[in-house]
Amino acid sequence: MDSHIAPVALEKAYRLLNHGPTVLVSARHDGVDNVMAAAWACALDFSPPKLTVVLDKATRTRALVEGSGTFVIQVPTVALLALTHQVGTRSLIDEPAKLANADVKLVEIEGYDLPFVAGCAAWLACKVVPEPHNQQTYDLFIGEVVGAWADTRVFRNGHWEFADADPSLRSLHYVAGGQFYAIGESLVVDEKTA
Amino acid sequence: MDSHIAPVALEKAYRLLNHGPTVLVSARHDGVDNVMAAAWACALDFSPPKLTVVLDKATRTRALVEGSGTFVIQVPTVALLALTHQVGTRSLIDEPAKLANADVKLVEIEGYDLPFVAGCAAWLACKVVPEPHNQQTYDLFIGEVVGAWADTRVFRNGHWEFADADPSLRSLHYVAGGQFYAIGESLVVDEKTA
Repeated sequence: MDSHIAPVALEKAYRLLNHGPTVLVSARHDGVDNVMAAAWACALDFSPPKLTVVLDKATRTRALVEGSGTFVIQVPTVALLALTHQVGTRSLIDEPAKLANADVKLVEIEGYDLPFVAGCAAWLACKVVPEPHNQQTYDLFIGEVVGAWADTRVFRNGHWEFADADPSLRSLHYVAGGQFYAIGESLVVDEKTA
Repeated sequence: MDSHIAPVALEKAYRLLNHGPTVLVSARHDGVDNVMAAAWACALDFSPPKLTVVLDKATRTRALVEGSGTFVIQVPTVALLALTHQVGTRSLIDEPAKLANADVKLVEIEGYDLPFVAGCAAWLACKVVPEPHNQQTYDLFIGEVVGAWADTRVFRNGHWEFADADPSLRSLHYVAGGQFYAIGESLVVDEKTA
């Protein structure tokens, strides 16, 4: 990880997802790494921090998550727009060189046997909380966040600070058909007068 | 509802939430209406469309949802910033005039016995899919979307079109401590070359 990356306290980890970014889901099992995009990821609890993510049965990443019981949710940036769309529309099953073709660079974090995608704005290492009924019926997985990190150029002191940073570091928010939005303007309510 | 409101086909309803907006949850039971804000709402399925939302046991809205088995998820706009923060930080239990104090205007849609919040960009009428274990253990509710509408000034032909509209109509994305972001710039990947 480069010099901008810092750990995020677990009780603040939900804030990395609170504004609803599209995420990359990565997982490793039996020597295989994969990465997919997911718009359907959401915080679920504060402490211990938990999140939900929908993983379709057709995805290779889901099989890796089921095999290892672990995964990473990461927040890609505008600079990773093409990568995010590619890993969200292609499958490792049909395209063994998917990650190389999409220009995905994986990095390691000491103490975690997981593939982290370089260049993201935030990373949440997760352990599956097994809920077989949700997984089978709804493709819905619950993860407990066991480690969190962010790029201090855009997340510091427990808040996203996109305004002062390069626009290429903003989070992505997918709609459909190749259409994304970047996150926009900061709006702060004065809690004393609100 | 005003003249800008149009129904959204149910199979496109997930797109109203796909970009991760903070939502307002409203519900009606036994003559009581309430509205709360929730950052933890997420699409779950395409067809029939389903979504998840986290409703804390301390909220009055949750009791109304449990009582009626129905609720509305709606997408508030920048123009509703103060309202969204107020209904997210105050409780009807402590403040019986919460909705009037927060300047919430409710409107009706024919055929739905539900309170819809005026001025939002989109509305999803939902029926609870009972999952008692999720509700008790995780405060996680699953809703099947049975009706969807959007403001055609910002959502048409199945896509959000924020770029051409007044910035006051953009969706809100909550972080914490009164800090929100508006959704920002549109970014389109050419699916033929990606």
